[in-house]
Amino acid sequence: MYKVGLLGLGTVGTGTAEILLNPAGRNPLIRDLDLHRVGVKTIGKAREIQLPTEILTTDLEGIVTDPDVDIVVELIGGTDRARSLILKAIESGKHIVTANKAVIARHGAEIFSAAQAAGVYVLIEAAVGGGIPIIQPLKQSLGANRIQKITGIINGTTNYILTQMQDVGADFADVLAEAQRLGYAEADPTADVDGFDAADKISILASLAFNGRIRYEDIEREGIRTVSVADINYAQQLGFTIKLLAIAQQDHHTHDQLQLRVGPTLVPKDHPLASVNGVFNAILVEADPLGQVMFYGPGAGKGATASAVVSDLLNITALLQGEKLEDALHPMLACPHEDYCQVAPITELETRFYARFRCGDRPGVIGHLGTCFGDQGVSIESVVQIGYQGDHAEVVVVTHEVTEGQFRQAVEAIHAYEAIDDIQVASILRVL
Amino acid sequence: MYKVGLLGLGTVGTGTAEILLNPAGRNPLIRDLDLHRVGVKTIGKAREIQLPTEILTTDLEGIVTDPDVDIVVELIGGTDRARSLILKAIESGKHIVTANKAVIARHGAEIFSAAQAAGVYVLIEAAVGGGIPIIQPLKQSLGANRIQKITGIINGTTNYILTQMQDVGADFADVLAEAQRLGYAEADPTADVDGFDAADKISILASLAFNGRIRYEDIEREGIRTVSVADINYAQQLGFTIKLLAIAQQDHHTHDQLQLRVGPTLVPKDHPLASVNGVFNAILVEADPLGQVMFYGPGAGKGATASAVVSDLLNITALLQGEKLEDALHPMLACPHEDYCQVAPITELETRFYARFRCGDRPGVIGHLGTCFGDQGVSIESVVQIGYQGDHAEVVVVTHEVTEGQFRQAVEAIHAYEAIDDIQVASILRVL
Repeated sequence: MYKVGLLGLGTVGTGTAEILLNPAGRNPLIRDLDLHRVGVKTIGKAREIQLPTEILTTDLEGIVTDPDVDIVVELIGGTDRARSLILKAIESGKHIVTANKAVIARHGAEIFSAAQAAGVYVLIEAAVGGGIPIIQPLKQSLGANRIQKITGIINGTTNYILTQMQDVGADFADVLAEAQRLGYAEADPTADVDGFDAADKISILASLAFNGRIRYEDIEREGIRTVSVADINYAQQLGFTIKLLAIAQQDHHTHDQLQLRVGPTLVPKDHPLASVNGVFNAILVEADPLGQVMFYGPGAGKGATASAVVSDLLNITALLQGEKLEDALHPMLACPHEDYCQVAPITELETRFYARFRCGDRPGVIGHLGTCFGDQGVSIESVVQIGYQGDHAEVVVVTHEVTEGQFRQAVEAIHAYEAIDDIQVASILRVL
Repeated sequence: MYKVGLLGLGTVGTGTAEILLNPAGRNPLIRDLDLHRVGVKTIGKAREIQLPTEILTTDLEGIVTDPDVDIVVELIGGTDRARSLILKAIESGKHIVTANKAVIARHGAEIFSAAQAAGVYVLIEAAVGGGIPIIQPLKQSLGANRIQKITGIINGTTNYILTQMQDVGADFADVLAEAQRLGYAEADPTADVDGFDAADKISILASLAFNGRIRYEDIEREGIRTVSVADINYAQQLGFTIKLLAIAQQDHHTHDQLQLRVGPTLVPKDHPLASVNGVFNAILVEADPLGQVMFYGPGAGKGATASAVVSDLLNITALLQGEKLEDALHPMLACPHEDYCQVAPITELETRFYARFRCGDRPGVIGHLGTCFGDQGVSIESVVQIGYQGDHAEVVVVTHEVTEGQFRQAVEAIHAYEAIDDIQVASILRVL
């Protein structure tokens, strides 16, 4: 019997407790897990789940240092307090299971070094993709491969908002308000809509896939506040759907630099990620020699995330039962790498671009745009003069693959070009 | 260093050897695997891969009893010889990795019992879904869940044929001939097109998901030879696409019987499996509390299947390095269950049905059909009188969920009904 100390009894904590207290029909190892203590803010609160009062405590430090506790499950969220509780638990020799992407993305180096030194596991299946098994496949099932690229829809809130904007034709602000009302978006939506959550998650996936640490600041990040219904409509006419993608890929040329980016991206409609809608998540892995493999499922929610938390508990239980020595961590479940990945600067990121320009409707505008792009080595895949608004024309351009640096120079050149002095860049998006 | 004995150097064997001989950029544990001996039919044959001649041998029995070999990788296919080599290897204390779904589906009980007694692993990630990680997720990542249903497109050949029939409008026989020419179908296509391969695979998945052994004969199996372009077109008009699905699910009512079936099935176009085309595979798992999770990727091919073979080798290597005692197999990687699952008889399987009738075009035919179905308790979801061929009408019916037994009785009643004596059942398919 292994004793679990649970920190936090919110949505995921409740789901986790429900599974542990209700083992019939699940993996038999669950019966070897004992929910020993549960740390909460207020003991007396009315709750969805009935727990014996004596296992509830407000003393979270007491749980992480309790000599009886074998495994600490951290589900309080946030960074500072979570970091300090996790480090204290590791110091006390506890294994850790956490769903906290932010604390791992920002303090992972410190946490995994401490865990390695203490000979304990820190398992994080629930931190990315909710219930979708992706962390363990990256560590184990895909180990034979050289990973080339990970492309993920890993934030359910933004995917719900973009899906609604496309289906209903409503503006970002309206859909966000509706999502907040339905509980799909937080009162302060910044972490989701500005891409911080997706950046946390892609840094975790990239670290596992490319076998090195990632500095969170190295990720190029853009949210979805700037995505307009106009762009969604133009994208649809061009055969694309707009998704907030998180991408980590090896540089085509050098193979020693990683490209890391989060941002709204046009996805071709026949791409497997294009039909991932609503609050669902999906992660597409491209690897040699495997090819493309995709993992799809609920990216959040009580049951889904708790499923991932308990799968990590089961893995630790199985290893502890196998009488493994604590100083020989299972090499495919530990995270022993200590080197940082080399991340490419933003100007060297390569992608296709979508740009929408607004300008006076006079002859030769498309030719001028084409010249400016051409002068900067930006090759155009398609140019569509689509709409008119009063005496203004809207021109949409999709480029071939270029570096971000080249593209930015081309846009500057267009602004500086005298022949089309009233041109405005209405929006710039990336294209998968 | 662990010594690998490889049986078979065909497509997947070659891919496996290529990964082992070329470890850079992959999981570092690959360097601990030594390709010690390779069993082939003919030593002197020209091959895609250069191996030192001294490791090649035609003596496969010699490999499985070689005291230096730690892990035997069985890639010769077929059932009888593979079974006897695997059992002999287990008896000699070797761990087993195999991609052979047929030998596991038909002789799994004997093989896993022997492995359990000998304290060795038999890992089978490559046996289902090629490179898609599905065996390990079922054993580990989804362990917190009660699995309710598995629905798979797990035969690439038939999915390619059905996709082509739909896209090109060609008949089964023509597309099959083309698939054979391209190497997507075997000269003898029976195992694929008659559903045997999918039945092997769903029996393996069901055994893991529902934690009991499956008798291969208990699976209701139907192939795709009877699927016509006419049905594909009607299905499309009704908003469906036809796929060969393999389904294992717990009985809604009793919860103690499994329903197991392979057959061509109408899938609603907005279902995640509907857009899985060509030789790709996908497995949808429905579980409590997780919800729906789908695994998608290449279901066959050299690199994909070899990726799965080597992931199993890595798992065994990691466990051996962890100084695990041989008599304490990792409880989440072994297959210790010995009981058989209770499988429902075919007449009790529940599903929606699609049926196409051909009959004289006279007033009241649809009413008569409706009466016959209604008398047998079969409730109709939609009736569409779609086509005319000469003086014959074609009527397509989609039912609500009924048991196979009820539906069969209704069809018999229709045949016996005098008022529509010229009615023919042109085709019957199931609907997801």
